[in-house]
Amino acid sequence: MEKEFASTLLENAVNEFAKLPGIGRKTALRLVLHLLRQEERVAVGFGEAIIKLRREIKYCNSCHNISEQEECPICANPARDHSIICVVENVKDVMSIENTAQHRGVYHVLGGLISPMDGVGPQDIEIDSLVKRVADGGVKEVILALSATMEGDTTNFYIYRKLAPTGVKVSVLARGVSVGNEIEYTDEITLGRSIQNRTLFSDSFNNSL
Amino acid sequence: MEKEFASTLLENAVNEFAKLPGIGRKTALRLVLHLLRQEERVAVGFGEAIIKLRREIKYCNSCHNISEQEECPICANPARDHSIICVVENVKDVMSIENTAQHRGVYHVLGGLISPMDGVGPQDIEIDSLVKRVADGGVKEVILALSATMEGDTTNFYIYRKLAPTGVKVSVLARGVSVGNEIEYTDEITLGRSIQNRTLFSDSFNNSL
Repeated sequence: MEKEFASTLLENAVNEFAKLPGIGRKTALRLVLHLLRQEERVAVGFGEAIIKLRREIKYCNSCHNISEQEECPICANPARDHSIICVVENVKDVMSIENTAQHRGVYHVLGGLISPMDGVGPQDIEIDSLVKRVADGGVKEVILALSATMEGDTTNFYIYRKLAPTGVKVSVLARGVSVGNEIEYTDEITLGRSIQNRTLFSDSFNNSL
Repeated sequence: MEKEFASTLLENAVNEFAKLPGIGRKTALRLVLHLLRQEERVAVGFGEAIIKLRREIKYCNSCHNISEQEECPICANPARDHSIICVVENVKDVMSIENTAQHRGVYHVLGGLISPMDGVGPQDIEIDSLVKRVADGGVKEVILALSATMEGDTTNFYIYRKLAPTGVKVSVLARGVSVGNEIEYTDEITLGRSIQNRTLFSDSFNNSL
């Protein structure tokens, strides 16, 4: 495989694409050759959008969501309930929850989960700034909306203990059978929790309105 | 889906990725967030590699392969047999054939196949320049190494007719059962052709040495 490409320019571009998660060398080559076939302004526009994004992106001073100003549009919106903070792992989760239109409060983006296996400790993510936000007052509830994984559970527990002295209400997303999933294919732990946390049928009926 | 992202910078970068073949909006977002998490020089290096490639890439004057000089390393190599031209659709096919180490001649990259469905005619690909190369003399054989598809067959036939007046030998890749494939799962047309074009067993034996 030595001297795979006729051009180091081509080789460099393929190497850059192949560094992205889930993109192998074959796909990288296919994408690069696609960009080469486009007009120059298309390929240059692609490269410039990435550079501009990385150089000019800002994060909200308050919730650490991606933003173009010091404060993100959600935090800056007076119609949002600033007394309810939804804690999420990353920017993508903000978008997912916004798409449900079920959360009228604000967010706090941790930027990761506690994961001793990956060397990520509580100091590496935005937990201290969350505790400070709550300690500053005006917050009634913190909703923990982290993944239902070992790392999510660890982070939930750590945050819960850190917030306990403030007396703020700490809630967590309901665990249960996913909508559309068959009981037969639902794992036992989820099924067990969904029995423990069963809700009134009339409530499920009202929620769906 | 209106106002999907908190930042137009983010939205632009996702849009650019989503234009690439086989990359949907979800994957595009995942890739962009990955680049955002990297150090600035990594993300900027990515963008610059693409821009540099598209701005500075050259194509070989003779065979239209990707090159850094006026003439690609294969055409410039005196050890290659310049009297045998292998005609391929694109740059990737040059790499595939080079990896077999079975072709000691040179190439001619068409840059596409004749496809009336996609509005690609003979004038849109490098057929005239191929005919000129052959007409200039010194070429003994043209090997057509195009895909075994309708478009490949159409292009083969068009090139064959264009080259007929020059009297050059025109050959085509053997069609047959792929190595490793079972007869049971080989389609009938391929199987039929492989019977018609059967080779001496002793030859197959010698070729594999």
